[in-house]
Amino acid sequence: MTATALTSFRASGTLYLSAPEAAELIRRLGLPLCLQQIADHIRADFLRWPDFDKSARTAAHSQGGVIELMPVADAHRYSFKYVNGHPGNTRLGLPTVMAFGVLADVDTGAPLFLSELTLTTALRTAAMSALAAKTLARPDSRVMALIGNGAQSEFQALAFQHLVGIETLRVYDVDPAAATKLVNNLQGSGLHITVCDSTAEAVRSADIVTTVTADKAMALILTPEMIQPGMHLNAVGGDCPGKTELHGDILDTAQVFVEYEPQSRIEGEIQHKSADFAVTELWQVLRGERPGRTGAEQVTVFDSVGFALEDFSALRFMMDSALRLGLGERIALIPQLADPKNLFGLVSGTAASGAARDALELAV
Amino acid sequence: MTATALTSFRASGTLYLSAPEAAELIRRLGLPLCLQQIADHIRADFLRWPDFDKSARTAAHSQGGVIELMPVADAHRYSFKYVNGHPGNTRLGLPTVMAFGVLADVDTGAPLFLSELTLTTALRTAAMSALAAKTLARPDSRVMALIGNGAQSEFQALAFQHLVGIETLRVYDVDPAAATKLVNNLQGSGLHITVCDSTAEAVRSADIVTTVTADKAMALILTPEMIQPGMHLNAVGGDCPGKTELHGDILDTAQVFVEYEPQSRIEGEIQHKSADFAVTELWQVLRGERPGRTGAEQVTVFDSVGFALEDFSALRFMMDSALRLGLGERIALIPQLADPKNLFGLVSGTAASGAARDALELAV
Repeated sequence: MTATALTSFRASGTLYLSAPEAAELIRRLGLPLCLQQIADHIRADFLRWPDFDKSARTAAHSQGGVIELMPVADAHRYSFKYVNGHPGNTRLGLPTVMAFGVLADVDTGAPLFLSELTLTTALRTAAMSALAAKTLARPDSRVMALIGNGAQSEFQALAFQHLVGIETLRVYDVDPAAATKLVNNLQGSGLHITVCDSTAEAVRSADIVTTVTADKAMALILTPEMIQPGMHLNAVGGDCPGKTELHGDILDTAQVFVEYEPQSRIEGEIQHKSADFAVTELWQVLRGERPGRTGAEQVTVFDSVGFALEDFSALRFMMDSALRLGLGERIALIPQLADPKNLFGLVSGTAASGAARDALELAV
Repeated sequence: MTATALTSFRASGTLYLSAPEAAELIRRLGLPLCLQQIADHIRADFLRWPDFDKSARTAAHSQGGVIELMPVADAHRYSFKYVNGHPGNTRLGLPTVMAFGVLADVDTGAPLFLSELTLTTALRTAAMSALAAKTLARPDSRVMALIGNGAQSEFQALAFQHLVGIETLRVYDVDPAAATKLVNNLQGSGLHITVCDSTAEAVRSADIVTTVTADKAMALILTPEMIQPGMHLNAVGGDCPGKTELHGDILDTAQVFVEYEPQSRIEGEIQHKSADFAVTELWQVLRGERPGRTGAEQVTVFDSVGFALEDFSALRFMMDSALRLGLGERIALIPQLADPKNLFGLVSGTAASGAARDALELAV
């Protein structure tokens, strides 16, 4: 596979998957299958966690938001994601989160695959959440509260339905139109959906609580009196410095699981806890090296901020699927050189190259 | 300009400039003009150095090379470059260095411009070298030794001819075929070129010495006995940990200038010097805050490793030029959403979206 991808790159350039083609890919395979496949890819990569060269993402903060780069690599593949978070974007008709990324060959540095990741990030985040819940929540969980009904909410709902067994949603958003959009989008899904008037009402009697709100502020979506024994909390929206969703007291009485501890201590719900606040990295539970949930009454928290390895897994899946389905196009992001030591040949063009261009134009 | 670029992005997506179109852009404007323009853009950005959010690049090292991400931002624009360095690539028919990058809008995170940067990096590195030499070398410099005649060498030669006033080149490469390629490529340039049998011979009687070799090893291209009073050394090839070109004693008796000190202490010629080894950042000289060359007998060294801000400047020039010349194409790297809060609408597609697609196909 490695040789094949590099051979294709050398012959015809980088495979590029646009946002419309990524959507087409997902429609063709079906969203449930894509979510399951991405979760499986994430699990496989998390199981070989020590193989990866990991680092906290680099972030450029500004008044309106943040732009981040998220690189990760193993001995064969390197990936990075570019992603922003600008809560004011929707007022301009732009998504709050926009993303794209690249999967590259470690041996040569060749960028094999360039893909949209706005849509793909929503899938991988939902797949990651479902994988964590499958690992940490009570196995008999059937009811989920979904707080925040924005761009990512339907993906979370369907991932929990198909991968975890959730049958009933209790949804709430400060913007009623968001809840209405969610209900419309999930018609025909088979989920039972109740729109609630408050977070407290939505959380009541839920087995799992997913928070996926977008405001860059200490929003404190969940407070201690809302939490019942045995709940699993999937905190997705708190993902940068100054942005949390859970009251600190909730963390003190729960067992907290994270993706990559160095990054979560900067960005996650635990950012205000002391450096020795106990957390478990999820890969340790998946590998059986650390316990997950230890009792039906325990409250478990997945403090998710999104880690580069999840994008690596998603890019692997999207590239393989695009190749299998014949989606995407080859682009000349990198010059093809007859002599790789003669880069100058590309622009030395005088009479000769001008004539070649004219010939080309005639041929077209 | 800011509003225009964002408006175009919202209306029709990211502007993408492929490697062939970047080459076309450079052919149309002419290489000397492009080098001059990029040097002017770099100078303008270096003069407002404190406006930028700077960081040392992130590097993923492997046995065969390195893959780096180089982000930088001011209050309005963010850029990053992806670039590799794999000395063994030419054996596979691939360039040693391949690169691409993005210029984005800080207020929204929108990726306005995606461009090849393999070719562009060669231009910006040469423009940067010439800008430094114009600032630091003796004004009467006319003879340059060029050690390493690989992919970047012709760009260095022409930048020094057109921006610094170099008339004569003395070239040397361990591979005689590289020197032959350089001579062929520079026919008609007006430069007088002498191919030499050794580095020592090439350096003899040169005013400026440019080293642009690619091996990842302590190559020690230049040794103290080669250096004459008044020389300016433009050390381009030493640009990662374990890769230097100059004997340490040369640095001790010279005045050393760098781009961004925190990065140069990791990657540059000064990587083996103590943390208090005196260097001057070039922007300080350009702004008149620190002296450059202080005498005709002084040896000056530009310890160049390549800094993200130079790519920011080059991306600004390439985007503006592409827009002016009508080059590049718009791509859907980010999904266009009728309702930016309804990302799910992209994949909810069942009967309705299928029908819309069919209609579209009929119309085409």
